[in-house]
Order: sequence, then C-alpha cells, then structure tokens
Amino acid sequence: MVDLTQVMDDEVFMAFASYATIILSKMMLMSTATAFYRLRRKVFANPEDCVTFGKGENAKKYLRTDDRVERVRRAHLNDLENIIPFLGIGLLYSLSGPDPSTAILHFRLFVGARIYHTIAYLTPLPQPNRALSFFVGYGVTLSMAYRLLKSKLYL
Amino acid sequence: MVDLTQVMDDEVFMAFASYATIILSKMMLMSTATAFYRLRRKVFANPEDCVTFGKGENAKKYLRTDDRVERVRRAHLNDLENIIPFLGIGLLYSLSGPDPSTAILHFRLFVGARIYHTIAYLTPLPQPNRALSFFVGYGVTLSMAYRLLKSKLYL
Amino acid sequence: MVDLTQVMDDEVFMAFASYATIILSKMMLMSTATAFYRLRRKVFANPEDCVTFGKGENAKKYLRTDDRVERVRRAHLNDLENIIPFLGIGLLYSLSGPDPSTAILHFRLFVGARIYHTIAYLTPLPQPNRALSFFVGYGVTLSMAYRLLKSKLYL
Repeated sequence: MVDLTQVMDDEVFMAFASYATIILSKMMLMSTATAFYRLRRKVFANPEDCVTFGKGENAKKYLRTDDRVERVRRAHLNDLENIIPFLGIGLLYSLSGPDPSTAILHFRLFVGARIYHTIAYLTPLPQPNRALSFFVGYGVTLSMAYRLLKSKLYL
Repeated sequence: MVDLTQVMDDEVFMAFASYATIILSKMMLMSTATAFYRLRRKVFANPEDCVTFGKGENAKKYLRTDDRVERVRRAHLNDLENIIPFLGIGLLYSLSGPDPSTAILHFRLFVGARIYHTIAYLTPLPQPNRALSFFVGYGVTLSMAYRLLKSKLYL
Repeated sequence: MVDLTQVMDDEVFMAFASYATIILSKMMLMSTATAFYRLRRKVFANPEDCVTFGKGENAKKYLRTDDRVERVRRAHLNDLENIIPFLGIGLLYSLSGPDPSTAILHFRLFVGARIYHTIAYLTPLPQPNRALSFFVGYGVTLSMAYRLLKSKLYL
C-alpha cells in the first residue's frame, strides 16, 4: 500500500499545498469582507436578512445594493475565476515532475499577484494596477498549463 | 510504477472522495433547480431561451428577473465560494496524514452544514439559520487549513 | 519515498490532466473575452476603469452594463458551475482505478460538450443547442460521480 503521507515529502507538492492553502484562505476572507460591509452598511440581498440584521421600523428598505458591497463581490468573483484554474492546473503541474525552483517561482508569483490584485481592487488603486496584477496571475497559470501539456499531453 | 488504485485504499482519502463527490453532486442540483424555476416561471436571461421555451405571442416579455430564481442563484454562488476552498484545502489536508477520525469529523460537519445551508436559503428559514450553517462550514475549512499549514508549511 | 513523477505514468491520470488543463485554459479565455468586449464597447464596472480605459470628456458615462458583456459573463459563470464538479469528481474518479477507455470517453465527451456550449452561448445558436450541450456535460459528471460512489463509498 502507498503511504500517502510520503506524497507530502515531495518538495514541489508541499510548496504547492502551502501556497494553495494560503491563497484559498485569502479568498475565503472575501466572504467575511462582504458580510462585514453588509452588516455595517445595512445592505442585504434577502428579506429574511433585513428582518434579523437590519432591525428598525421599516426593515425592507435595507433590501438594496451598494457600491462598496458590489466591489467586494466583483473582487471575490474574479478570485474564483482565477484561483480555480491555478488550483487545477497547479496540482497537475506539481505532479508532472517540474524543476522545483521554477515551480516555486510560479507559485510565489501567482500568490503575490493575487494578493496585490485584491489590494488594488478594494482600495481602489488607479488602473493599470489591477489589470497588471491580473495578467501576472493569468500568465503564470498559462505558463504552467503550457509546460504540463508539452511534457504530458495524452488525448 | 505506483499503482494508483492503491491511493484509494487510504481511509481518509476514500472518505474525502466520498464526501467531496456528495457535496459536488448537491451543488450540481442547484443548476437543475435554477432551470426548473426558469421554465416554470418563464423567467429567462437570454432572448434565444425566450423564443424556444417561452412560446407565445410575445416571448421577449419573459426576459426578466425573478426573486425565486435569483435566490437559487445566490445559493449556488455561495456554494461555489465555499465548496471550492473545501475541495482544495480538503484534498491537500487528506494527503498530509491527518488522524482519520478527526479528518472524517471535519468532512461530515462540512457536508452537513452545507446541506443545511441550502435548505435554510431555499425555504427560506429565518436568520440566523443560514448564517450559522455558513460559519460552521467556514470554520471547518479554516481548521483544515490551519492543521495543514502547521504541519507542512513550505514556502 | 514515492517518486511523484510516476503518478503521471498512469494512462487515465495523464489523460485527465490533459483534458482538465485544456478545459481550464478555455475557461480562462472567457476572462479575456470579457476584457475585450469591455474595452471595445467601453463598458466598465468600476469608476477607476472608466478613468483609465474610457478616456474622454465624461468618462463616468461608461459605467454601465451591456448585453454582449453580460452574455460572456453568464457563459463564464456557467463554466465555473460545471467545470468545478468535473475537476473535483474527475480527479477522484481518475484515482479510483476506472477502465481507461471508459474514463477517456467521459473526459472527451465533457470537454467537447463544454466547448460546444461556449460556441452555442456566444454565437448565440438557437435553443436547444446550448441546453443539450449543458446536459451532456452534466450527465458525464454525474456518471463519474455514480461510478466513484458505487466502487469507493466510505462515509
């Protein structure tokens, strides 16, 4: 039987596991940020939320949208759209026997770019801060996809 | 050569595979629920859907939004935002050699909390039913992330 | 120690890695398509984007929505909702020792159906082109989930 704990002895796989966990935890913070702004600004998407969290004589008026909440939600959705390909492609790339220092450089660049993207989106910083950090993360993922398909294509 | 079928002999990994498959199948049901409400209530997002599914003298009037459909879509998006971190972190956590009974407790709590979250969202149950089930799932994922980073951090 | 590069010698796993990378790369193209239409049609979601990319005497007027951009975004979100279950269930199914030709048939059908779904959504082709391609991808994922749970259920 394979001792699965040995899989984690692989340097690249351990690094991937650490960076993936960090960037997923960052993504989860976006849910908390949305909840924070919804409660602070009393902006809810569901009538039952207004009743409980927006106490007052006329709770239904809190069923509305708000620039700040929508901005956090767009940043969250952009995370989903970009972190999912990184997770899938990065996991398979980690298993394809890449050069460790190249692989770890890919992971570091991606995580750094996505953290900067969130800062640029939520501050907000003027463009092209957000666009550039988006394209760094995008390029890193495509670079891993290219290396993976070049070495292991099997259709 | 590694016999990959042996990977599935690991108790924690098999349990993760089962719970992950169950919660992903549940998430897929949300697509069917959206389609069901769209067809039943004749509420479409695309003109070509109105033409085919909203037969009648004036199909374009079905290009509209509806509270019930939007509620299902919000529940679906919340699933995406929470099940993705569970999948990524849970997979890596399963490979990091956790105590089996602790690991399986994490998986069970997460799956139970997310199923309850869907029920609370779609019924809808009064708050804080939905908020509590959200935070149970959120806490379970963070707990796995913490254990993983504590034992296997490699940056 | 397990030599992780051997994992990729498994025929089914290599095929899964290739098809998953291809469909994730296709999904990433949707971000580029959104950016393309936003810049070409000057339709932005953030004030800072209008200032930089929508140069002119009155940039704020570009803070608006547009049918074409919204269509690409719906196609992207539908990809997220369907490719994530395929990734999670497909990965675990690949590790459960399936018959190679059956497994590869599943992967090919899914990838073909999702590419056709994108074409049907963006052209747009009349229904039920999009609905049928959606259900082929959906059925393939459920079929893998069923086979996985049947052979490896462990709760």
